[in-house]
Order: sequence, then structure tokens, then C-alpha cells
Amino acid sequence: MIPIHEALQQVLKQRSTYGTEKISLLEAKGRFLAEDIFTDRDAPPFDRVMMDGIAIQHKDLDEPPAASYKVQGIQAAGSPQLSLQEETYCLEIMTGAILPHQADTIIPYEEVEIKEGRAYIQAAKLAKRFIHYKGSDSKKGELILSKGKKITAADIGLLATVGKSTVSVAKLPKVAIISTGDELVEVDQEPQAHQIRKSNAYTLWAGLMEEGITGKLYHINDDKEALRQSLAALLEEFDVLLLSGGVSKGKFDHIPEILHELGVKKIFHRVAQRPGKPFWFGAHQSLNTKVFAYPGNPVSTYVNHFYYFQQWLYASLGKDMALSRVELAQSIPSNPALALFVSVRLDPKSGAAKALNHNGSGDLFSLAQTEGFVLLPARGTDYMPGEKVDFLALK
Amino acid sequence: MIPIHEALQQVLKQRSTYGTEKISLLEAKGRFLAEDIFTDRDAPPFDRVMMDGIAIQHKDLDEPPAASYKVQGIQAAGSPQLSLQEETYCLEIMTGAILPHQADTIIPYEEVEIKEGRAYIQAAKLAKRFIHYKGSDSKKGELILSKGKKITAADIGLLATVGKSTVSVAKLPKVAIISTGDELVEVDQEPQAHQIRKSNAYTLWAGLMEEGITGKLYHINDDKEALRQSLAALLEEFDVLLLSGGVSKGKFDHIPEILHELGVKKIFHRVAQRPGKPFWFGAHQSLNTKVFAYPGNPVSTYVNHFYYFQQWLYASLGKDMALSRVELAQSIPSNPALALFVSVRLDPKSGAAKALNHNGSGDLFSLAQTEGFVLLPARGTDYMPGEKVDFLALK
Repeated sequence: MIPIHEALQQVLKQRSTYGTEKISLLEAKGRFLAEDIFTDRDAPPFDRVMMDGIAIQHKDLDEPPAASYKVQGIQAAGSPQLSLQEETYCLEIMTGAILPHQADTIIPYEEVEIKEGRAYIQAAKLAKRFIHYKGSDSKKGELILSKGKKITAADIGLLATVGKSTVSVAKLPKVAIISTGDELVEVDQEPQAHQIRKSNAYTLWAGLMEEGITGKLYHINDDKEALRQSLAALLEEFDVLLLSGGVSKGKFDHIPEILHELGVKKIFHRVAQRPGKPFWFGAHQSLNTKVFAYPGNPVSTYVNHFYYFQQWLYASLGKDMALSRVELAQSIPSNPALALFVSVRLDPKSGAAKALNHNGSGDLFSLAQTEGFVLLPARGTDYMPGEKVDFLALK
Repeated sequence: MIPIHEALQQVLKQRSTYGTEKISLLEAKGRFLAEDIFTDRDAPPFDRVMMDGIAIQHKDLDEPPAASYKVQGIQAAGSPQLSLQEETYCLEIMTGAILPHQADTIIPYEEVEIKEGRAYIQAAKLAKRFIHYKGSDSKKGELILSKGKKITAADIGLLATVGKSTVSVAKLPKVAIISTGDELVEVDQEPQAHQIRKSNAYTLWAGLMEEGITGKLYHINDDKEALRQSLAALLEEFDVLLLSGGVSKGKFDHIPEILHELGVKKIFHRVAQRPGKPFWFGAHQSLNTKVFAYPGNPVSTYVNHFYYFQQWLYASLGKDMALSRVELAQSIPSNPALALFVSVRLDPKSGAAKALNHNGSGDLFSLAQTEGFVLLPARGTDYMPGEKVDFLALK
């Protein structure tokens, strides 16, 4: 049994890369950038008008402007740049338009009256307001998004702005989700008294979908030969195997032994945590297949997957995942030997975490009530209200 | 101009429903439940063995057990329930198995030695450990997930457990994303000096995708007749129009006027907030089409969409969205007249929010650096370190 921080370190050490691919911008949300992104123009790309009104040439800002200007025409957004033909002329200008040649001052409609082709200025004082100058946000060639970043909706807008209709992203690993256990039946089956329906496989499937990965579902019965043959084939075909069930010490829990025979090196088995202690993690050295074997309990599978696999995935494809932090709303008993994942709800006003279940075990249905899990590392003294701890939000 | 809380209230008042549909469990993550979900069996559905070992009939827990028991056979997980044939017999049992008839006590392998068909007990003290009793988590017919809940990966597992291979969810609205502005060109085009590429439309598209909605993209030029014809058709075809640009006061910003002519009732225009002040919101009374018209600035569009539309969507399909709360890491100047959306990063240790940009405006590229926005309601006194405020995490 190893401590949780060591288990995580071992898992992260097994980070791997799966190449890159070019995909359409419309598919890129949630993927990890495989290229640095630079601006291809100054931003804004021209002296951009920020208000609707008129543009004049004013030059000396201390002197009051002429009382009125002849309206020469309109500089609309999206129209090529016009020029003021005379110092006593103005152009009506629209938000988003390029500032006309010769013009240096915008007067918004609120401070102008336009009558019979002339604009009468009603502003007491002028200044170079309402012009968003070329390059004032960023210069051409600036780095705006770095390789490894997980692409947000806002980033999609940035990528569009710099003309990336396709973008290079990290390829996703191929993942098999393997349920084991003869007591399991399909979701649409009516279980007999001693049977239960599969559930972990679907939770894992949905968790992978969230990351853009379409997992492939398999079920293998508790038969040594069937397990050996299936696992041998799956180790060849996939980059990652997610197993649920079959890692405790029973007669029919052959999986660690078979994985060993098939060349998967055990990196650790059993972590000093609750729930999820019997977690088994290994890797096939020549095939480079990673094996996350979760204990069969749904809450155990859940926390192990969203803690270990999720961090492994982020580290593999891009940057390390930043766990969010929350404040504890109450004291929670610690465990001197085990790290605890404690099911919590967040107070709507303070955002602080209240435990639903102190002892860090918890059944399947408690997952329906929880908003996530706080991670309380092993220690001798209880956790106190106001302490900041890691938080795994329910996905 | 109305205050932000009133704007939100008006938006939420326009919540609407779009019917329900049955979909596969595999597609249900992130959708909103349109039915209450009950357990169809006790959980666990039988007295479930929690350890590998042997099962005996012990009856009186104060008395030490027989020194050894004849091994009658194996009760595997997924096998129908066996019976202990004699009081001096035991059954080997596996995690997940049903507790055999007559048996009442589990002794794990760690406390047993099995030799020549007999099990020798090495435990000093026994108890009814390691049995997860039928119905101890929940009884058949219990409500586990309520109508209106947004389905998480954990919920997918719960739905599987109770046999929901298909699930009834709220239908999603049909959404059109309409960019306007003659200065905009497509992402894959090389803009001329006075042009910029479309970006807001793609940010909105990605934001909708996150909610399972495939938005349809349109662009309409700044031509009154083209706008009128296109908007008339789109109001008929869609449940929601998201417009970006075209709601300030310029000569070519015809949209509010045209929407009015087409029967869309303006609910408000301009909100006391920064950025995003010129937000326009309306609804067509007979067609029931909602119109969110965002100002063209990318940060304005972003905060308005993820604040107003997102909350409207959750309220329409399920339950009101709970904004998360964060603590401020520093003081931030308030504005007595305007609510501010301030771009922040979260401290990795404390989780507290540090402002990237105090004044609540911000350019497109600042979106690349931000982790989200804190919402600081209008008030006369500055915000202080330690205050808890609403937080919009970047999606």
C-alpha cells in the first residue's frame, strides 16, 4: 500500500503522447492545443472607431473645434478607409469602422446635432476618446495561446480571430472500458436475485465523452482463459484499459495475475485512501498500454477515475490539471493512515464544503446527492472549518 | 438602463419549455431529466458479501466459532444463492456474491487457513462484518434523481443501475447564431485592412455545444431589407436567436427597429453593467422566440451569453443554475452605478480570485489569460479581500 501522493506521482510518470492531428475549429472545444498560437495582425488591426458619431480633424486638442462641420459622407464598419477632404468637413462614423484618413477625433452623436448636411458640435471639451488604436491590445506575432492549453469556448473565438479554421491538437488515446464480474447484467435486462446491472462502465463512458473520447465497452466473464484471451487482444488494440472490478483477493479475481502474465508491469496495487483502496495500476512496457484497474464499488471507481485517470490524461495531452480548491464549512474527522475522499455539497452563499458523509465510504446513491469530493490527506489532527482543500467537482 | 438583477429577473421570466424526448442513456450526460427516477429494487438487492473469504453460520457472536469448518464449495459473485448444508460446513465466498442461505458471518481469507478441504479460523473475535445488507442503502421505490436535474457522469451510473437504458429528457431549443456587421469576414479569409474575422459566433457555437445544442450559424449584412427578410424567417424557424453586434445607436444598427417591426417585444435594452452594457433582450409573443442581442465586443458577448442565456437555458430545461462562489484575494474598486464583471485568475493554493483587469472592460486577448469572471454588484464601497462573490468559470 502506498500513500496517495506517491500513487499520483507514479501515475503521472506514466504520461504518454499519442501524436497530433489537425481538426476543424468547430470540433476543437475541450481538446488540447498542439501548437502555439500567435496573432497574425495587430489587434485591433486598424484604428477602430468605438462610438457612432462623427470624425473630425482636430489636431490641437486645447483649442475649441469649429462650431460646425460639413458632413462629407459616412464611414461605415466594413467599408474601406475614406479621407476627410477638407479640415472643415466631417464624416459620420459607425462603431467598428476604420478611422478615416486625416481624422483624429470622434464626437459621439450624443454631443452633435446634424441639420441640413452640417454637424453642430455640442461638446464642451474634446479628447482622443473612442478610438481603439491599432495594436493597442496586442502586436502582430504575439503568443496568445500556448501549446498544451485545453481549448475553451473563449479560445475558439480567439482562434477564429487569428484565422485558425483548422487547429492542431493532441490526438486522444484509444480507451477500452472493461467490466468484469459474473454478477453483472446489461442495463436493459431484468436482473435475477443475485445479479446487478452494470453501472460503472457507463459512468466511465460518460466521463470519457466529456473529454471527447469515445470509449469502447467490453464485458468479460470471470473465466481465466476468456480473461487472458480478451485482455491480450485489448492490450494490443488500445492505449488505455479501464477495468472495473476484479482487483481484490478472491478466487475469481484473476486479473492482476493475468495482466502480469501478459507482460503488464504492476506499478502499484492498493493506495492508502478511502474509498478506492484496492486500485491497481500498471503499464505494458513494449506496447505502452496503461491499465487502470478500479475496485468494483461505484464510489471507489468514481473517485479513482476522476482523480488518477483524469490527471494522467491532462498531463499526457497538455498541461497538468489544476484541481480546484474549496474551503471547509465544518470540521471533518481525519484519518491518520488514509487519505479520505469525502462527499460534499457547497454552500450556495459561502461556497464552502459541507460533508454529506464523514467516513469517506458511501454508496452508489449518495453520488446522486453529492456535488463533489474533497480530498483530505492522511493526518493525525482533524480538519477544521476554514481550511482550504482540493476539490473534485462532480462531472 | 436597468440594474443587472432586474435584467436577470426579466430574462428568467421568459423561461420556456420545448417538450421532452426519450434518448439513449449513452447520450444523456449533460441533458436535463424530464422524469423522476426511482429505484426499482432494494440497494443492495441482496445481502451482498464485501470481502473474499468464507461464510459460516455462527448465530451467537459471543461464543468462539468451531476451530475448523469443512469447505462445502464456492459461492461466486453472479451465482445463484447456495445453502450451507450443515452447521459445521462453510462456503468460500467472493466479493459481490449473495450471502448463502443459513450463513450469517464472513471471515476474510486473511483470518483463515484452508488446508485439505477444511478452513481453520484464525480470527480471535467475529462480528457481522463485511455484509452489505439488502436495502441498507435504499429501499425499492425511493426517489434518487429528480426531474430537472442536469445529468452527471455519476448519474449515468445510477440510471444504469435502475435499468434506464433510455431516459426522458427536456428537448433542447433550436438556436440560431447570427453575426452582423459588414466588417466581418470568414475565419478562413484574409481580411483587408478595415475588416476583421468573425469570432463571437464561434465562441457562442462552442458554448452551445457544451450544452448539447448544435447552433446554426448565419451572417447578415448591414442592409435593412436583408436583415428584415432574414430575421423574419429565423424568428419563425428557431426558438432562440443569438445576435452579436448591431445594438448600439449607429446609422447601420437597424436591428432593434427591425425586430420591433417584426413583432418582437423589447423587454430591455442596456443594463447597468460593464462590460456588456448595450445588451438587448426581447421576445416574440406569438411565436415565442427569444432574442438575445449582444453588443459586438467579444468580452461583452462572452459575459452576457454565459450569464444571461446560460441561466435562462437552465431555468427553461431544468432547475435554476447555481453560480459558483469564490473569495476575493484582494480589494477591487467597485462602481456605484454599474455591476462589474472582472476578469480573474484563481490562486492555486487558496482558490481565491485575483483580478487581471480592474476596470471590467478588457479586450479579446485578455480572454486567453482569464479563468473566469467575478460579478461585483454596483455599490459605493470597494470590494475587500475575503468577500465571497459570484463566479462565472470560463467554459
